[in-house]
Amino acid sequence: MIDRILSHRSIRKFTNAEIPDDVLNKILLAGTRASTTGNMQVYSIILTTNQIQKERLWQSHFKQNMVLNAPIHLTFCADFNRFSLWCKARKAEPGYDNFLSFFTAAIDALLVSQNIAIAAEAEGLGICYLGTATYNADQIIEILELPKLVIPVAAMVLGYPDETPGLTDRLPVNGVIHSEKYRNYSTSDLDRIHAEKEGLAQSMELLRVNHTETLAQIFTDKRYAKKDNQFFSVKYLKTIIDQGFMNNE
Amino acid sequence: MIDRILSHRSIRKFTNAEIPDDVLNKILLAGTRASTTGNMQVYSIILTTNQIQKERLWQSHFKQNMVLNAPIHLTFCADFNRFSLWCKARKAEPGYDNFLSFFTAAIDALLVSQNIAIAAEAEGLGICYLGTATYNADQIIEILELPKLVIPVAAMVLGYPDETPGLTDRLPVNGVIHSEKYRNYSTSDLDRIHAEKEGLAQSMELLRVNHTETLAQIFTDKRYAKKDNQFFSVKYLKTIIDQGFMNNE
Repeated sequence: MIDRILSHRSIRKFTNAEIPDDVLNKILLAGTRASTTGNMQVYSIILTTNQIQKERLWQSHFKQNMVLNAPIHLTFCADFNRFSLWCKARKAEPGYDNFLSFFTAAIDALLVSQNIAIAAEAEGLGICYLGTATYNADQIIEILELPKLVIPVAAMVLGYPDETPGLTDRLPVNGVIHSEKYRNYSTSDLDRIHAEKEGLAQSMELLRVNHTETLAQIFTDKRYAKKDNQFFSVKYLKTIIDQGFMNNE
Repeated sequence: MIDRILSHRSIRKFTNAEIPDDVLNKILLAGTRASTTGNMQVYSIILTTNQIQKERLWQSHFKQNMVLNAPIHLTFCADFNRFSLWCKARKAEPGYDNFLSFFTAAIDALLVSQNIAIAAEAEGLGICYLGTATYNADQIIEILELPKLVIPVAAMVLGYPDETPGLTDRLPVNGVIHSEKYRNYSTSDLDRIHAEKEGLAQSMELLRVNHTETLAQIFTDKRYAKKDNQFFSVKYLKTIIDQGFMNNE
């Protein structure tokens, strides 16, 4: 089982094979077994298979083709709407329209998403997260008709793999683990931790294609630039407020 | 493998058996194979085994006994410090001191945590998340000496189980899944979804012990009360700002 986790690759190309209902149901059930704060299960999962809906989501996810290509698209949402409605229906006054509740629900949703990722791979499916669910959360809310106290935190496509990519590099484990206290990183620590990554042929190729001197510059100047991060920070915070999660006092 | 996920129970009582290094290392390695935004791995895990450190963390986690009882305590942190230091060492100007970057790093950390939870259970260990890592994040930062751009988002204890609790109830899968669009919940939907939970003998017992009329009131009035949620919302947002994650413009 750990071997399966160790062999995870993100899959972006899928065959036309549909996912049988019993397989999908088993995977979703595995999702709901994840740990959840106070057993409140403050999340919802929106399942998209309809082509028109997929095309709308594809626009919001910066036209990443795997959204159109995959048979199933899942949007994982922090959801305190259902729990609050239940409270109201049970003579209880909910107080979950605040930032802590948003973050608690986001944690719930993300643990569920990873259970589903692992369960899907155990069933022979391939998955890929879309890191863009937070970027255009406002558009996704409109497409999926999410009410107040529901907000997307992650998205994932699933299907039978039509590619067999190699294992992606990772930092050595001791580069991300700290014993007892955080040990800050010296320049030589950084060199050591990143040596393998920076030495890969594909990293060299990235420098050539992007005309940059260092791998880090590809992140700061192209992929995750400060001005974009700031723009989407303001936008996502506004969405958190609009969805009713910032009544903190 | 899915069967293991389906049989997850949180474990709060542990034997004295230590976790062998090779087992622990394998579990941590499985953690690092989780999907990560742009393969940046913007998280750190702080491993606590020292008794004095455990006692300090125990205070911050509202004296939940499993913190003292478990051989290993893990604190999962959103971490853009390491990545930013690497950028600076590589002639690149990092722009990750904003809310989107905080949330991106939190997602990374949470996916890693769930990989570790599942890998640990596959190795015969028991785990329990501590939902309190966000409540006193400021104290945990001090105890673990976390620098700017590092912030706790979750914590977990691990060890060999010394109890065999039953499976916790969950809402039916169709209560948390929506097809194509969010279908809001009618009163009869809420009744149906919560029928099993509300009918459990242990739920009845909770009503008796807590002197409440409904199960929901235990959440709103005792476990997750509005004033507490608001208090910890302000506190966690302040910690996000203090750790340098709110420079959005």
